[in-house]
Amino acid sequence: MDIKIIDAKKTILEDNDEDAEVLRKDLEEKGILYLNVMSSPGSGKTSCIISIIKRLESDFRIAVMEADIDSDVDARKIQEETGAEAIQIHTGGMCHLDAEMSRQGLRELKSSPNLVILENVGNLVCPAEFDTGAAKNIVILSVPEGDDKPLKYPLMFEKADAVVINKIDAIEAFDFNIERARENIKKRNGSIPVFPVSAATGEGVDEITDWIKKLSKNY
Amino acid sequence: MDIKIIDAKKTILEDNDEDAEVLRKDLEEKGILYLNVMSSPGSGKTSCIISIIKRLESDFRIAVMEADIDSDVDARKIQEETGAEAIQIHTGGMCHLDAEMSRQGLRELKSSPNLVILENVGNLVCPAEFDTGAAKNIVILSVPEGDDKPLKYPLMFEKADAVVINKIDAIEAFDFNIERARENIKKRNGSIPVFPVSAATGEGVDEITDWIKKLSKNY
Repeated sequence: MDIKIIDAKKTILEDNDEDAEVLRKDLEEKGILYLNVMSSPGSGKTSCIISIIKRLESDFRIAVMEADIDSDVDARKIQEETGAEAIQIHTGGMCHLDAEMSRQGLRELKSSPNLVILENVGNLVCPAEFDTGAAKNIVILSVPEGDDKPLKYPLMFEKADAVVINKIDAIEAFDFNIERARENIKKRNGSIPVFPVSAATGEGVDEITDWIKKLSKNY
Repeated sequence: MDIKIIDAKKTILEDNDEDAEVLRKDLEEKGILYLNVMSSPGSGKTSCIISIIKRLESDFRIAVMEADIDSDVDARKIQEETGAEAIQIHTGGMCHLDAEMSRQGLRELKSSPNLVILENVGNLVCPAEFDTGAAKNIVILSVPEGDDKPLKYPLMFEKADAVVINKIDAIEAFDFNIERARENIKKRNGSIPVFPVSAATGEGVDEITDWIKKLSKNY
């Protein structure tokens, strides 16, 4: 099956924050839970999303929007491995997605989803600066990246509503301490949930999906 | 020893490319080899730099400029583990360093270095868009990130003068194929050297330092 590729146009609105609020309310009224997943390149966003979809496919109608500067490898992978609708949004060289670009993507979804997961551009800086209109932001930090990242990328962890620590199956090979990571996350953002998981083995993923199910009760 | 922290000011110059050319020529005349190291967060820039310094400390007077949005953990680590002069440049929330910010950092170095290594902000998008005035750009791709990254972050790999594939000691734990990575790099940038290394074990690092020594002959 071919992958739909959207070349997103830059917003003409000056106030992205205001626009994101409008989109958020609109999605809430329509009963669509929109989640924004952010992380470094290669921390396992796609694998986590696949792992989440497989556990939630009987609870939700799920669609995925993949934001990338180029290529459609992630959308293709999601669609092949889960059967969920996946579209690719090309950001025209930009390092983030904004609310208007979200809207352009959402408009193209054909499967009437009630859970839409956005895989944002792999980047721990810029995506945090632009509200996508999502109900919640999930930040993934992977074990090989190191437990100091919340100190070095403060805004990303301030904007997070939950942090997933991925690739815990590889923890023996790296100098990563989950408690130290929790402390560093807490410095940025006191009370958010932290989920240590392995998207590869499935360990811990149920905790994320339980959290998503609870969120959806408001929808 | 305290770490010098520079709060870099945004350039007032409109044409960063032109400014970078001026800086590059100026450094060449002064015999200072300036290398810009870019990668995702957590791909091992700092560890690679430490590993390189340890092999080159008898050949060069080396100084390191660490660019980060916040914290001084990397500069501290470099200084403690190598004794080389290291300063921290804070980018004021920005996801990259430009030529003027480079210049502000270079001005603060007290050890009269003839090799200056810049560890740019961890990010595979924005730093590629801003010429720092460096003689060469080194891009690090680590095994846990996956071998598809050159497809998804084209500009970064187009701007690279060499690519280091780091964390090859962990290759068994990840679905990463070095030949596939080489092919993907080649699609972006035909002829550049690719160095598979492990900064942790030291494997392959001599190939990078040989390349740097050859570069320095023009300086």
